Amino acid sequence: MSEIDAKLQAMGLVLPAPPKLPPGVVLPFSWVRVRGNRALVSGHIPVQPDGAIAKPLGKVGAELTEEQGYQAARLAGLAILASLQRELGDLDRITAWLRVFGQVNATTGFDRYALVINGFSDLIIELFGAERGGHARSVVHTSALPFGAPVEIEAEVEIQT
Amino acid sequence: MSEIDAKLQAMGLVLPAPPKLPPGVVLPFSWVRVRGNRALVSGHIPVQPDGAIAKPLGKVGAELTEEQGYQAARLAGLAILASLQRELGDLDRITAWLRVFGQVNATTGFDRYALVINGFSDLIIELFGAERGGHARSVVHTSALPFGAPVEIEAEVEIQT
Amino acid sequence: MSEIDAKLQAMGLVLPAPPKLPPGVVLPFSWVRVRGNRALVSGHIPVQPDGAIAKPLGKVGAELTEEQGYQAARLAGLAILASLQRELGDLDRITAWLRVFGQVNATTGFDRYALVINGFSDLIIELFGAERGGHARSVVHTSALPFGAPVEIEAEVEIQT
Repeated sequence: MSEIDAKLQAMGLVLPAPPKLPPGVVLPFSWVRVRGNRALVSGHIPVQPDGAIAKPLGKVGAELTEEQGYQAARLAGLAILASLQRELGDLDRITAWLRVFGQVNATTGFDRYALVINGFSDLIIELFGAERGGHARSVVHTSALPFGAPVEIEAEVEIQT
Repeated sequence: MSEIDAKLQAMGLVLPAPPKLPPGVVLPFSWVRVRGNRALVSGHIPVQPDGAIAKPLGKVGAELTEEQGYQAARLAGLAILASLQRELGDLDRITAWLRVFGQVNATTGFDRYALVINGFSDLIIELFGAERGGHARSVVHTSALPFGAPVEIEAEVEIQT
Repeated sequence: MSEIDAKLQAMGLVLPAPPKLPPGVVLPFSWVRVRGNRALVSGHIPVQPDGAIAKPLGKVGAELTEEQGYQAARLAGLAILASLQRELGDLDRITAWLRVFGQVNATTGFDRYALVINGFSDLIIELFGAERGGHARSVVHTSALPFGAPVEIEAEVEIQT
C-alpha cells in the first residue's frame, strides 16, 4: 500500500467515486491534465463517497455555517485526491503541491470566506506533510457555484514522471 | 499552410485583429507572455473580426441567453488564438493546452454559468483534437467584466521552443 | 546592494514587514511556494510598512476612489516583493514575471476595476523593466476580500535556481 493510501486509511478517509453530473451536463475538459511533471487539476466541488454532489448546498453564512463550509472544502479535497489517483495511478507520485485556487459561495460581506478553504489546506498538509503539502493559495468570494455548491477548488501539483 | 490555419479555414473561422481598446484605457501587460515552453495568455474578452469589442454586451441570463454566452466564449477563443498567432508566429507550435480560467458575467443565481465556457473548450478541442486540446478548467461567476463583456478567458499552453 | 534593492531605494520605497494577521486567523499555506525555477506567490492584500493591514479599507467606487485603489494595488505589490525577498534572499534572482491574478473589491457595476491593478503592474515594470517585468494578467471583480481589503494579488515568477 502506498504511503498516502495508508495515511488515508489511518485517518478513516475514503476517496469518492468519479463526480456524477446531472443529466444533460457535459463537461468538455479533463478533471486532471498531465504534462511532464505538472498535473493541473480542474475546479472540483464536494462530492459524497458515491460521487453524487454532496450536501448541504448553499451559501456559507446562510445555509452553511463556517464549520460546514470547512467540511465541504475537505470533501472537495477528497474529490481532487480521487481524480489524481485515477489519473496518476498512485498518489505517492505527487512530489509537491504547488498552487491552490478556491472559490467560496458565501453571503455578501462574509469576509471570513477564505478560512473556509483551510478545510482543504489542512487535509493536504496532514496527508503530505508541511514540506510536500505546502502550497501557494488564493481564494475568491463568489455568489454562485455549479449546482449551488458551497466551495470549488482548483490546484496544481508537481509529479514524478 | 499550417495545420491549425487549415482547420480554421475549413471551419470558416477568421482570427480577429488585435483588441481595440477605448481611448484612455492603458493595459500595462502582455496579451501573451512566453518563457521557455510556456505561453501564458492574459484574460481576453470577445471581439469582432476588426478587434472592436463584440456585442451583445451584458449579463448571461439577462441581456444574453446561455447560447449567446456560448457564442461569446467562442469569440473570446478566437481572440486568444489571434494573440497566440501574433506572438508565436504559427499556432502549430502549440503542443498542448494546459489550463483555462473563465469568468462569466451572469445574473445572480444563474448557476449554469460554467457551461457558457464550453463555447471556448469545444472550439479548442475541435481545432486541436482531444489529446492536444484537452485542458484543466475553472470558471468563476462574476457580476462585472470590462466594458460590460459577458465572458473573459485566461489560459496557459505548452509550446515548442 | 542588489539592482532591485537599489531601484527601490532610489524610488523611496520600503518593503514592509511580514503581514500581521488579527488574532485567531491561521493561514495554513505559504506566502511563497518555490519549486525548481518557479516561485508561486499567494494572494496578498495591501499592508503598511509594519505589516499591519493598510487603510483605507472598503470598496473601490465607494470608500476608495479609483486612484486610491491604484495605490492599494501598489502596496500589495510591495507586500509581494517583501515576501519574495524573504523567501529568495535577493530579488535579483527573479528572472521574469509570468502571471498576475488580481481581485478588486468594487461596487456593483464599477467596470473599470481591472485598471486598479495597474498600480501593481506599473510598479513591477518600473522596477524590473518591460522585458523582465512583463506578465500575463487576469483580474476579477469581487464583492468581498479578507478584512475588507480593496485588492488582493497573486503571482508567479521565474527564478534563478
